[in-house]
Parts: sequence; C-alpha cells; structure tokens
Amino acid sequence: MAMRPLRSLLSFEEALKVCLEKTEPIERRESVPLAEAGGRVLCEDITASSDVPAFDRAAMDGYAVLAQDTYQAGTLKPAALEVIETLYAGDLAKKKVGPGTCTEVATGVKLPPGADGVVRVEDTERVGSRVSIRRPIHPGQYVSRRGEDVRRGTVVLRAGNLLTPSRVGVLAAVGRAEAPVYERARVHIIASGEEVVEPGQPLADGRVYNINSYSLAAIVQDTGARATLAGIVADDRASIRRAIEEGLDCDVVVFSAGSSVGERDILVDVMQEVGKVLFHGIAVKPGKPTLFGRVGRTLLFGMPGYPTSCLSNAYMMLVPMLRKMMRLPVRQEERAQASLSTRIVSVTGRHQFYTVRLDDGEALPAFKESGAITSMSEADGYIEIPANVDLVEKGEKVLVRRF
Amino acid sequence: MAMRPLRSLLSFEEALKVCLEKTEPIERRESVPLAEAGGRVLCEDITASSDVPAFDRAAMDGYAVLAQDTYQAGTLKPAALEVIETLYAGDLAKKKVGPGTCTEVATGVKLPPGADGVVRVEDTERVGSRVSIRRPIHPGQYVSRRGEDVRRGTVVLRAGNLLTPSRVGVLAAVGRAEAPVYERARVHIIASGEEVVEPGQPLADGRVYNINSYSLAAIVQDTGARATLAGIVADDRASIRRAIEEGLDCDVVVFSAGSSVGERDILVDVMQEVGKVLFHGIAVKPGKPTLFGRVGRTLLFGMPGYPTSCLSNAYMMLVPMLRKMMRLPVRQEERAQASLSTRIVSVTGRHQFYTVRLDDGEALPAFKESGAITSMSEADGYIEIPANVDLVEKGEKVLVRRF
Repeated sequence: MAMRPLRSLLSFEEALKVCLEKTEPIERRESVPLAEAGGRVLCEDITASSDVPAFDRAAMDGYAVLAQDTYQAGTLKPAALEVIETLYAGDLAKKKVGPGTCTEVATGVKLPPGADGVVRVEDTERVGSRVSIRRPIHPGQYVSRRGEDVRRGTVVLRAGNLLTPSRVGVLAAVGRAEAPVYERARVHIIASGEEVVEPGQPLADGRVYNINSYSLAAIVQDTGARATLAGIVADDRASIRRAIEEGLDCDVVVFSAGSSVGERDILVDVMQEVGKVLFHGIAVKPGKPTLFGRVGRTLLFGMPGYPTSCLSNAYMMLVPMLRKMMRLPVRQEERAQASLSTRIVSVTGRHQFYTVRLDDGEALPAFKESGAITSMSEADGYIEIPANVDLVEKGEKVLVRRF
Repeated sequence: MAMRPLRSLLSFEEALKVCLEKTEPIERRESVPLAEAGGRVLCEDITASSDVPAFDRAAMDGYAVLAQDTYQAGTLKPAALEVIETLYAGDLAKKKVGPGTCTEVATGVKLPPGADGVVRVEDTERVGSRVSIRRPIHPGQYVSRRGEDVRRGTVVLRAGNLLTPSRVGVLAAVGRAEAPVYERARVHIIASGEEVVEPGQPLADGRVYNINSYSLAAIVQDTGARATLAGIVADDRASIRRAIEEGLDCDVVVFSAGSSVGERDILVDVMQEVGKVLFHGIAVKPGKPTLFGRVGRTLLFGMPGYPTSCLSNAYMMLVPMLRKMMRLPVRQEERAQASLSTRIVSVTGRHQFYTVRLDDGEALPAFKESGAITSMSEADGYIEIPANVDLVEKGEKVLVRRF
C-alpha cells in the first residue's frame, strides 16, 4: 500500500474559485407543464401576445353607467337609472348603455358598450328594474383598463427568472400552458470502499453503513437538482473507472471515497486516466482530502469519506456550484446572525467549517469530530472561520448558515 | 342576482388564529426510501440498535501500535517496529499486535487486537517490513472509540425532527434503509367561474385565463405539500358541490372563486350545506372576500378571484397552515430587513399585504392593484402593515418576506 500524503493544499477561497470557474450554467432546455413549473428557471423571455386584461372590465360588483349620469348623485338625492341587462361572469353585453340606463355587472365582466364607469353595489339601492345611485363616479372609475396589467408585446418575464408562484401566475395570465425552462442539474452519487455496506443490510464486523450517498442525495435534492444513486463500488481501478463512466451523462459525479489515502489515490489515478485533476487537497477543516476534476463536460468531486467532511464540502462547494449551474439566485436570507456563546480557537491556515446550535440568538458549538455524523445532525447550521482567523471571541457576531 | 355584500369583517389576526386553531398536524404515516427522505418529518423516535462506530477504529492512516512502544520516540531517535500485517478498508486483523510490532492500517479500519493507538503515516518512515516512528502517542490516540459518535440504545433522532441532509445521514448511520415519516399535506385546487379558461386554450371575448390554480400549485408545492389541480368548474351549486366532494380526501380544498360576490355566495351556500363556514370576510387588503370553512376533517378556503388577493392570502394564511400540518419549523430566516424607500399610507382597519422590490437594502413599493398579477411578479417579497398602522414613514425598517 503506497500511501501518498497530500502535499500542497489549495486555500478554500482558491478551491471554491476553481469550482465555480469550471461550472457552466446548464444550456439544456425543456418544457414543463405549468403546474410543475414552480422553482424552475425560465430559458426564454416571455412576451405577452395579448393585453391583460384583454378588455376594459368592471373592477367591482355593481352597475356599469355613463359617469355623467351620476355627477349630481348624492345620498339625499340619488340618481335613478333603468337596469337594462344583467351580466354574470363571462357574459357579453347584448345592449348598449345609454343616458338614463345601466347594466348590472359582476367584477371582471367586460364593460358594456356605452358605459364608461362602474358604481359599486354598496353605493346603490335596487328596486325592481330601477337602481338608485347614491354616489357620483368619474369616467373610468372602478374599471380595469385593457392592457393595464400587461400590454401586448411587453416582455413580462425574462430568461433567467426564477419561477416564483406569482411568476407562474404571469405565465398563466398570458396563456402559456407550459414553461420553457433550463433543465435541472443531474448529480451521480457513487460510494466506494470495501468496508461500506448499504443501510438495511446486516453489518459485519469491521464494516460501516453508507452514510454519504444519502446525505449527499438530500442536499443535492434540496437545491432542486436531481440525484441518482449508483450504490457502492469496489475499491479497484476498473470498478471505479466504470462507475465514473456510467455517470458521465450527468453534470456532476460525486464520489464519496473510502476513508483511506490509499483508496483516494486510486480515484486520483482514474481521474487522471479519464480526465483531468483540477485540485487535490484543500486547506479546510474538516474536508482536507478533497479531489476535484473534470471528464469532458462532467465535473468530478472526490469527497472525503468522513460524513461531516463530505457534507460540509457539499454545503460549501457543491451547493454553490449546483446553484450556479441552475442559475438560481444567491440566497442571503438563509443566514441568521447570532452571537457566539464561547470563544473558538481555529486552526490557522485552514478554512474551518464549524457546526453550531442556535439558541435565543446565541450560536453554541456543536462540533465533535469529522467522523461523527452527530456533529451535524444536532446542529442548526454552521459558521465559517477563514484560514487567516485563529480566534473568534465569545460574544462576537457570526453569520450562521442554516442546514 | 342577489348580491350580498360582506358585512362584519374579521381582523386578520383573528382570521389567522381561526385558521391555525382548526389546523391539526397530520397523523397519517408512511415509510419512504432514504434517498427520498430529505425535507420530510420523522414520525418516530429513532433509537440506535448498535454503537456507531461499531468498533474501535483507526481515525488516521498509519500504524496501529502499543502506545508504550512509542513513548521514547523522537525525530532524532525514532522507535523501530516490525510491520506484521497490512489492513485495507474493511479488512479484519488476523494477527495480534504485541511489543515491538505494529499493523499498517487505513483510516476506518477496526483496531487490531493488542494495539491501543495509531501513529499517523506522516510521523513515520517505512523501510521494507520495518517502520520508524518519529513521534510518541498516548493510548487511545487517533482511535475513534466504539460508540463515540452514537451509543447503542440512544435516541438519535426524535419524532417531529425535520430530515435535514445530516439527519438523513444519521438514519443511514444506524442502518435504516427507510425513514418513517408523516405524510405530506394534500391540497385540492379548484378554479371556478364561467369566464375562466385554461392557459393554452384560445381566449374568447370577455374571458380570462385561469391564473390562480397555477400560482396556488406553485406555492403549495414550495411548502413541500402535494397539489392536485381539479380544473375549472361551472358556477352552479351542483358542480361546485361535486368538485368539493371530490377533494374531501385531501387535507385542504382551495377554491379560487370567480371574482364576483354572486359566485362567492354560491360557495358560501354549498359550504353551509356540506359543512360549516368558519369565517367569511377579513379586514385585509387585498384579500377581503375570503371564506374559510370545514367539511369533516377537510379545511376549505374560498379565495378571492383576483390573482394578487388569492396569492397574498395563500402566503399569509395557507402557508402557515400547511407548515403546521406538516410540522415544519417556523422559518424566520426568509425575512430580510430593509428600509422603506418611500412613505406608505395604508388603509386603517385593514391588515395590508404590500409587495416590494428589494434594491440594495431598500424596499421599494411594487404594488399596483389586486387585479394585477404583475404587482407580485415584479416584486421580491412583501411587507405586512397591521390594521392599526395607517402610515409607514420613509426610511423605516421593515421586514420583507421573500417570495
């Protein structure tokens, strides 16, 4: 077993820069039904092919009138009009509103010809076919004008827009049954290690369960990307190479290596055979033995085997990459400010990922060691301590990125 | 057409209180594969059936030794040991480590019998079957003890825990292939109105596209709940009743009523026939003509027809209800603080939902009118102005809830 220790470590900032530089936004496009379009990113500008509303319409339930018929109206001396027609939602007027007449309208109904405003039902009193108007209106009052919301030919949404619920509504408003969007990122997740066993199987002596494939799948899916699990592959060159090649139709292959340097070396060798190693080893704690490379257009991550190291790397590097790939906006709102409950001494020269619990505005250390999955599961989030900071004092304000 | 104007309006706080009081957390349970468990909520405490790690293991690549053999070791005077065996990941020792001997181990390997510590490969020099140890270790050094992460019998996760990526990892660590979780909420979405047409269809004169079903589906899915779209139903009592009854196997039926008071009256009447109206009319702007009731264990919302009113009600009432149903934690981190770019005069007596754009820490009004879907699609989020506040000054700090 020729163990090659990691030599020169890249700084975390340099490593992240390399990761993001090599990450291209996805150009593949697809069309999805509107009912499934929420959270996706538009790949085309959307131009309204008609006005919204498509016609002048009543903005209130009431009576469509000629405004001038109401100018003298008041509570004490109401204006009396003849109701010539009643329009329910979707109805079109058959009659023209002229002086002394009006048409009863429901909100949203197309304004009858002749009418130039609507008197709200609250300001009227109806007796048989006559209605008393108790308040004057001006022309255009309680009318939504054609094109007031969206004018035909206007670009209502732009390529790159994230489809929030209201933007999905805009697509519906301009009559689109489908949304043209960029495809989501696809991530192929491989575990390796002779000692690794799938959960649900009996655990022989000396073996451990495959944790990383599942925690990686959860974090990948949380970004909106798709995860495929390739299971556990044997620790030999041929198996690892085959597993990587099977994932090359994905945007990213994430390899959660066995925990030893020897196994990682096989992955380095295979990466060099089939593609290019971009870096190996980062000055970050935990997560040092991280490998990053590329085969064709697929990016490859060799994550450390320890669950916390693997997941903290995913939070700090894989997630920003996937968000860039999927053109998702930067999310600042997930960071909560808290004051540190105790002084933390960090390892100078290594960017530290430090898990914390949040309690009433205080951030309490939750970190145990990178082999312990409970360091993360009992935490609410993490703080990052840059490599050039060796001490964070008790009471200092820190930004906590929530899990 | 007997139009019944809304009479007594409930305050927004009272309405929200009623909504949340009538909302019961879902008790239905299911088991989901671990690879799909992220974001779900556990319905059982999870107890570790074995220790994690299940055995004392090497925490570093190196040599398993008797610590006392290294006490005198130093750079200038290394201790020399005989390598009796090499253990790769998953291997079990065949030989016992005794004085003067050691076993080469990969990280994660079960500590061989006899050994009580590990010397890191960095602190050694190997020549043939002999290795020089340049640094002393103490007993237990670079060894992860059996049960150090999780002790057998410990409750590692609790019912009600949201399955974050690291908690999914904990399930894997204790060997679970499936996660016992509460079911997600199911929401049945119905549109009504003779004037409403599905997107993708031609738009006849006087008609509008069905916007609300799609923006509601997006907001419902965004909470993690499942949405079923029941399409557009006719505005008569029998059709509306049938549509509601078809949705009664869901947790919530959301009815985006036609826009007129007349249509809403049909819904009120049907709700009274088949169940109970809990409130009708809220002092909130937009969103006043909102109806809430219950049929059996299914909650019913009659949302106003205007897209902004419908969606703002969904943000302010439906989302908190769904989150309570699904036992999801309150999310404060989605609120961003900003200073208001201009004075806003609000309607006293009505809780106002006010859309804003965010620009460099400033919140700029984006509201047009409740009929306009663009009031929301061009906004980044909203602020709420309570009913007893009639004025928010320029420069005041406001909390913006992002879309």
